[in-house]
Amino acid sequence: MRIGVLGTGMVGKTIATKLVALGHEVMMGSRAPDNEQAAEWVASAGSGGSQGTFADAAGFGELVFNCTAGTGSLEALELAGAENLAHKTLVDVSNPLDFSQGMPPSLFVCNTDSLGEQIQRAFPDARVVKTLNTVNCEVMVDPARVPREHDVFICGDDASAKAEVVGLLRSFGWPVEHIVDLGDITAARGTEAYLLLWLRLRGATETRDFNIRVVR
Amino acid sequence: MRIGVLGTGMVGKTIATKLVALGHEVMMGSRAPDNEQAAEWVASAGSGGSQGTFADAAGFGELVFNCTAGTGSLEALELAGAENLAHKTLVDVSNPLDFSQGMPPSLFVCNTDSLGEQIQRAFPDARVVKTLNTVNCEVMVDPARVPREHDVFICGDDASAKAEVVGLLRSFGWPVEHIVDLGDITAARGTEAYLLLWLRLRGATETRDFNIRVVR
Repeated sequence: MRIGVLGTGMVGKTIATKLVALGHEVMMGSRAPDNEQAAEWVASAGSGGSQGTFADAAGFGELVFNCTAGTGSLEALELAGAENLAHKTLVDVSNPLDFSQGMPPSLFVCNTDSLGEQIQRAFPDARVVKTLNTVNCEVMVDPARVPREHDVFICGDDASAKAEVVGLLRSFGWPVEHIVDLGDITAARGTEAYLLLWLRLRGATETRDFNIRVVR
Repeated sequence: MRIGVLGTGMVGKTIATKLVALGHEVMMGSRAPDNEQAAEWVASAGSGGSQGTFADAAGFGELVFNCTAGTGSLEALELAGAENLAHKTLVDVSNPLDFSQGMPPSLFVCNTDSLGEQIQRAFPDARVVKTLNTVNCEVMVDPARVPREHDVFICGDDASAKAEVVGLLRSFGWPVEHIVDLGDITAARGTEAYLLLWLRLRGATETRDFNIRVVR
């Protein structure tokens, strides 16, 4: 399918590369149509990759990934345009990390709200699905980097959009029994707040290739 | 050893009962010396259990557990008295849950601070160790209720206090390789914020006997 990937950082490049490898047509979107990071990615991506503005990429995609830094996500999506996101599945993998006070980062929204909810409220006609934000981007698209069984979370208000994303996650290598549906988009409060624990686990495990498994 | 358990709710009773079963002498502390919940517990606890005020219990204990509801923890510890907590290991299992706006609860402190840190700052001479707050109280003292391998977290500023608590956790049934040291007390920001995910997992797993395992 045609997929727009907003963001040219590590996360955007990693997701976009995986999507091209899976046979999708991917347009990477950024503020400037000739963004250098995106151009570099397109050069390496082969015929499945292209670049454009946020609006170009969102308009191109039948489905859109938000891979921008959390601090810039709402602005990037404004530039993408509500009309280009309407009725589309918007996969939000961003985290509301605030690095302005140094390390470790804090969250600029949490507890009684979340970035996933802010995005859904700002773009009520988009079908926001929050997922993958609880793992490093290399694990997002290659869960086997963590050799034991582990889980990814999904939440959103639209059941059919979630089903579509479950299909994508399976194509990334996530076993369906390890895709945990947490309910509506307010569950993003849980998966985003988990980043505060992720940051500590990152220090304790001394690797980025880790994740958690829910056991019962 | 002699242990003070502050709090007469489910968590306090469960921890106190386990400690008595392990051969410790336990005084359960509450606001009133004749608290009915505590009296009921003492009646069932056998010769190892007694009750008193927060100050009595903290003074009695060579080690003290804070099992009060998070909203009341700082006040309960004030009543316990800084002098009764000084130089003692204070095991903080509380969570800063705010139920005032209904379900699901939010946190009354999070992100750039935590209840564990507030307690450590308020009682600088106590050696605060945050642990066990990420699981249901029945799992705290009987980790085998969750049949697969899973992890408990520990953090605090004092290495010898953490070592003492690791010993207690092992006596509760936690395998040492599943006790994850996250560093100093600021890591309580992570383990307390995780409650926002725990609440969603509680809904998704439909059990209280669950936990997470860190995999890498």
